[in-house]
Amino acid sequence: MELWFTEKQTPTFGITAKIRETFVHEKTEFQQLDMIDTEEFGRMLVLDGMVMTTIKDEFVYHEMVAHPALNTHPNPKKVLVVGGGDGGVIREVIKHPGVEKAVLVEIDGKVIEYSKQYLPEIAGKLDDPKVEVLVNDGYMHILEHKNEYDVIMVDSTEPVGPAAPLFERGFYQGIYEALKDDGIFVAQTDNPWFKADLIQKVSKDVKEIFPIVRVYGANIPTYPSGLWTFTMGSKTYDPLEVDESQIAEMDTKYYSPRLHKAAFVLPKFVEDLVK
Amino acid sequence: MELWFTEKQTPTFGITAKIRETFVHEKTEFQQLDMIDTEEFGRMLVLDGMVMTTIKDEFVYHEMVAHPALNTHPNPKKVLVVGGGDGGVIREVIKHPGVEKAVLVEIDGKVIEYSKQYLPEIAGKLDDPKVEVLVNDGYMHILEHKNEYDVIMVDSTEPVGPAAPLFERGFYQGIYEALKDDGIFVAQTDNPWFKADLIQKVSKDVKEIFPIVRVYGANIPTYPSGLWTFTMGSKTYDPLEVDESQIAEMDTKYYSPRLHKAAFVLPKFVEDLVK
Repeated sequence: MELWFTEKQTPTFGITAKIRETFVHEKTEFQQLDMIDTEEFGRMLVLDGMVMTTIKDEFVYHEMVAHPALNTHPNPKKVLVVGGGDGGVIREVIKHPGVEKAVLVEIDGKVIEYSKQYLPEIAGKLDDPKVEVLVNDGYMHILEHKNEYDVIMVDSTEPVGPAAPLFERGFYQGIYEALKDDGIFVAQTDNPWFKADLIQKVSKDVKEIFPIVRVYGANIPTYPSGLWTFTMGSKTYDPLEVDESQIAEMDTKYYSPRLHKAAFVLPKFVEDLVK
Repeated sequence: MELWFTEKQTPTFGITAKIRETFVHEKTEFQQLDMIDTEEFGRMLVLDGMVMTTIKDEFVYHEMVAHPALNTHPNPKKVLVVGGGDGGVIREVIKHPGVEKAVLVEIDGKVIEYSKQYLPEIAGKLDDPKVEVLVNDGYMHILEHKNEYDVIMVDSTEPVGPAAPLFERGFYQGIYEALKDDGIFVAQTDNPWFKADLIQKVSKDVKEIFPIVRVYGANIPTYPSGLWTFTMGSKTYDPLEVDESQIAEMDTKYYSPRLHKAAFVLPKFVEDLVK
């Protein structure tokens, strides 16, 4: 018998992957959590039926959340990751030697637990001494901290279920206040083919709060449409004014100093969305 | 009853689309041809089970085959498209006012016939007076023409079936000779996630023939991995030395003058493939 996992990325379109094994199929306090092993992409974390990360392509998302912001801020010391319980963004964040503390606030402790167990390549740095892991509501954490972080990264699921408030204007205002005077924030903002409205709305909301707003993209094969966007809001520093020749070459597979600015050059129809 | 079309992009991974209607299901002289109507991407041409083009995302591929080369050559007058019977690349080519003649050589006349019938938005310019349509073997056409074209575009299927010879080194040598002294050629070269070997091989072969070889990418949601690559071989002009401010803004949805050079900045793992 062949088992195939299918994610309906829209009601009428999806991806389908042959699976070798199911490790976890569990309803947590917050969401349906599945950990499976696929032939093509290796082990895969699925939340509420949506692929979150896979061994084969996880590096794209994690690098592209972390490095553009950290290479735009000249001296990021304290970084917050909201969501991201798989630990992939944290792993990338602490590659930057100047980062002294990286705080992860994940609402669902089960994501952390099962990622450590089944995705050690991704979650392995959650025990690093620079890292503080909090199982808590990221929205509340933001509201309770003012003028504290150099960079805040929102590594959430889609705006359904527990992540829905993380796409509200009030959350971005809270992030603005939780950041230091020259802070930067970045959030994953879905894809322009099926979720153009969302990208447009986030971009508009963030522009009302942050003086510098830039959107960039990356290719993630297991995410809807293969083109993912990220929205960056910055108080002082512009990612497009970074001197790429001054960015240190790092141990990455997708991001590079050469890609830093090119990632912000969007297809024309996406450019038009966020104008 | 719901009907879904599934393309296995690899033996263990694929995309799946709900279909409204099947217009054509026919074995032509060269391949299996299906023309279907999908809910998410609209009408779709499928050859040998592989998505060739869809109404919703066709603009990406067709613009990105045509415009980078035509905006690198300073004065392209005569252009050849090998394959591309749906007419999408031709439609983009003749947007360039300097192009005097665009020749299409498609081996399978049925692709042209059904594209005209079911995909008029894509194929509608095949009857333009500047366009010559030949139902013929592109490989033979290349061998029979010397020093004739300014730009040659290879819009083929995957290297299986009738397109297999279009990925051979001898074909690139033929293209070199069919081009004028300052000619440029571009070919679609599949995706780096599942076909890294192919990209590497083509890049190596083309480098043995053309002094300037550049690889660029574009996001195509219905193609495997969502990231498609194109390999350009050029005798004289370097796409990276184009002055983007001199590129005319055109009626496009993906390509833009701003994207011209950025498209050549590849993810690090792809950069490493074609070094």
